[in-house]
Formats: sequence, structure tokens, C-alpha cells
Amino acid sequence: MKKAVVILSGGLDSTVCMSIAKSKGYDVFPLTFAYGQRHNKEVEQARKVADYYGCNKHLVVDIDFFRAIGESALTSDRINVPVNRSQEELAEGIPVTYVPFRNAVFLSMATGYAESIRAEIIYIGVNALDYSGYPDCRPQFIQAFQEVIRLGATTSDKGAQIKIESPLIHMSKGEIVKLGLKNKSPLHLTTSCYQGRERACGICDSCQLRLKGFSDAGTKDPIQYEEVM
Amino acid sequence: MKKAVVILSGGLDSTVCMSIAKSKGYDVFPLTFAYGQRHNKEVEQARKVADYYGCNKHLVVDIDFFRAIGESALTSDRINVPVNRSQEELAEGIPVTYVPFRNAVFLSMATGYAESIRAEIIYIGVNALDYSGYPDCRPQFIQAFQEVIRLGATTSDKGAQIKIESPLIHMSKGEIVKLGLKNKSPLHLTTSCYQGRERACGICDSCQLRLKGFSDAGTKDPIQYEEVM
Repeated sequence: MKKAVVILSGGLDSTVCMSIAKSKGYDVFPLTFAYGQRHNKEVEQARKVADYYGCNKHLVVDIDFFRAIGESALTSDRINVPVNRSQEELAEGIPVTYVPFRNAVFLSMATGYAESIRAEIIYIGVNALDYSGYPDCRPQFIQAFQEVIRLGATTSDKGAQIKIESPLIHMSKGEIVKLGLKNKSPLHLTTSCYQGRERACGICDSCQLRLKGFSDAGTKDPIQYEEVM
Repeated sequence: MKKAVVILSGGLDSTVCMSIAKSKGYDVFPLTFAYGQRHNKEVEQARKVADYYGCNKHLVVDIDFFRAIGESALTSDRINVPVNRSQEELAEGIPVTYVPFRNAVFLSMATGYAESIRAEIIYIGVNALDYSGYPDCRPQFIQAFQEVIRLGATTSDKGAQIKIESPLIHMSKGEIVKLGLKNKSPLHLTTSCYQGRERACGICDSCQLRLKGFSDAGTKDPIQYEEVM
């Protein structure tokens, strides 16, 4: 059975990625990064998703690095998570929640892991449409990283190049929700809120995108929110 | 004063890189990875080198990842470090001491750090001649990673592309030693031995390369060895 590493955050997108890897018949090895988010809710939900899929192994890696360099609202306690921003504001520039070069760090480690377990593919749930503010979510970035793998991984020399799959990269949040439902992904186990409290806030950028996605897909989000929606 | 991130392992090559960055007039920010080596001798020596250069800040990042995926002799206790290998054996294939995709992980984090402190350059002491067994030490790999930075770092969009400098990449170990002496690098503070004991073993691959380098440079290695050389 062929192996896939799936970068699993416990969010909506990476959970739908899990369902895609499973539907292709891969033996799935979820890889989760605990990187000094303000909260550990994401990691907790990632564990539930890995359990749901009956994965034999779920590697959770602690990276203190992003807190150490801490500039972003997701890792630093000194910056507030922006809430209630308009669609126009959401479309503007690089958000304060950007974690410097995060996806490169994630992909580097995922590649090292794939090398060590002889996995042939890495799934990452990056999305270029809804997160256009993050430069490391662009298709060109993923392509450039593929080239780094070709030239830097030992397996490439043996003719077994590890491939990055980013199946959600051109999909809207509504399409991702629809695909998740079709694949029977455990969307009720996912979390997207930047605030990381017991219930989702419903007003941070990430909650807004998620709610719009469910709305566009014509269905109700199964998770619980603090505000009455 | 312009800032440079220097990836500093406490070894010979990265310490010579420090001296190059200093000679170019950079405000140097050393970055050291504690990544589950069997020993912490390297990190200890890195601190001494950073102190020697009077750096204001020395970021030491713990990465448990390589131990978690642990396959290599440098991080796993179950694989023995090879010793007393011939020049022919040293030239053969990928050594057991290879840490999967290590330089990509290091460069990713160095780029995130450079973004956050607004550094314009990253120095890395990779070397393609003496370590040809590691695919992530090849010039093509460094070039490909430069492209990942161009496409994935936020600073690139602002026209301030972070540049990777690998000034030792085509140098022999003898040339590196000579340059270190010319730049008055604290070579006596560096460590290269894979075994990580109080004194260097003199017989692992890394000690052999180092000793050959000093011999080729026509000088004596100032550090202490267990064996009488």
C-alpha cells in the first residue's frame, strides 16, 4: 500500500485533504505542527480527525520556532486577531495573521518525514483563492518547492521523487465544503477559528471565510459558534 | 547597519561563514538549531562563537522533529557513527549521517527569521566538494531554494528579496581553513566530531575531513583529539 504524508492542522481544508488521500487509496500518515499557536485547539481537533480515519500513526511535531521569532497574531500574544473585517478589507495585502514562511517550514519537514517513511506523496491543503494574502499559498510557490525536493531529497536520486499535491489550491471555500461532504469528511471535528476558544467566534477572518463557504455550499456548518449566526 | 542571519552550527564551516559576514560589515544574527543530535556539544560551541563575535542576539531553536522521524546516525541512538572509513568509502553515496532534508528545514526557518527581523541575507556554510554525498548541499539545491524565497516570502513582494549566500560551496576544506585563519575566525572554539564527546574522536568521517583540511592548509588543528594524531 502506497504511503502519503498529509499535513493536518485540524482545520477544514486539511481534513478535506485527508479525505482525498484516503479516497485515492493511500496509507495515510498525518503530520501536525504544534507551533506556538495561542491555543492547542487545532492540535486537539487534528488528533480527533486522525482517529476518525483510523490512522496507525499521527506525528505531532512541536516547533517553538514561530513563537521564538513571534511576529504574527497567531503566535504572539501582543497582536490582536482582527475581527469583523469587510470583504474589501479581507482582500487587502498580507494579513497580520501571516506566520513568516510557514508553508516552507511545513513542506521541508513533511519532505524529511516522507523520505524517512518512504512515502511518495505529500498532501497540503493550501488554497490560493481564499488566502491570496499569503504568498506561500500561491501555485508558483508550490511548484518552486517541488523543484527543491527534486534537487535536495535523496529519494529523487533513486528515481522516486516525492510529489506535492495541493488539490484545493484553485477551489473556493464553498467547493471545498461540497467536496468534504461528498467524501464524508468529519467536518464536525474541524476548527478554523483564530481565537481558539471552546466555540468558534464567528467574526475573525477565518470564521468569516468558513461561514461563507458553508453558505455558498448551501448547507449549515455543523460546529458550534459563540454568536448566534 | 544591514542585517544578516548566519546559520551557525558551532562547526568549522559555519564559523568561517560568520567571519565572512562580519568582514562584509553585517550586523550578524546567528541562528542555531538544536535538533536532537546525540550531543549538545555543537550548540555549546555555537554559543561560544556567538559570544566571541559579540552578537547581541543568538537564537537557538529546538527542533525535536529529526529525532521524531529519527533515521540518521546523528539523531538516532540505534545507528552507529561510521569510523575510520577510507577516502574511497567517504566518496560513496549518501552517508548514514544524512539527516533527511535538513538544509531545507534550516533555510526555511532562517528565511522566516530573516523576514521577521528584516535581514537581507542568509549565510549558510554548505559545501559541495567535501560533502557531495548530501544532495541538499548542491549548488542547484541552493538556487532552487532561492526561487522558493522569491515566490514565497512577503519581503519579495516589497522588492527586498532575501538572498542566500553559500560562500564556501565550491571550496575545499583546506581552503576553508585558510580563509578562517585569514579572517581570524575562532577555529579553536569549533567542533566537528560526530561523536560529541569532550574531545574529538579523530576517526569519524567529519574528523577525518577536518584533519585533512588542516593538513592541506599546512597548519595544526587547535582543538584537542582523543587519539594521538
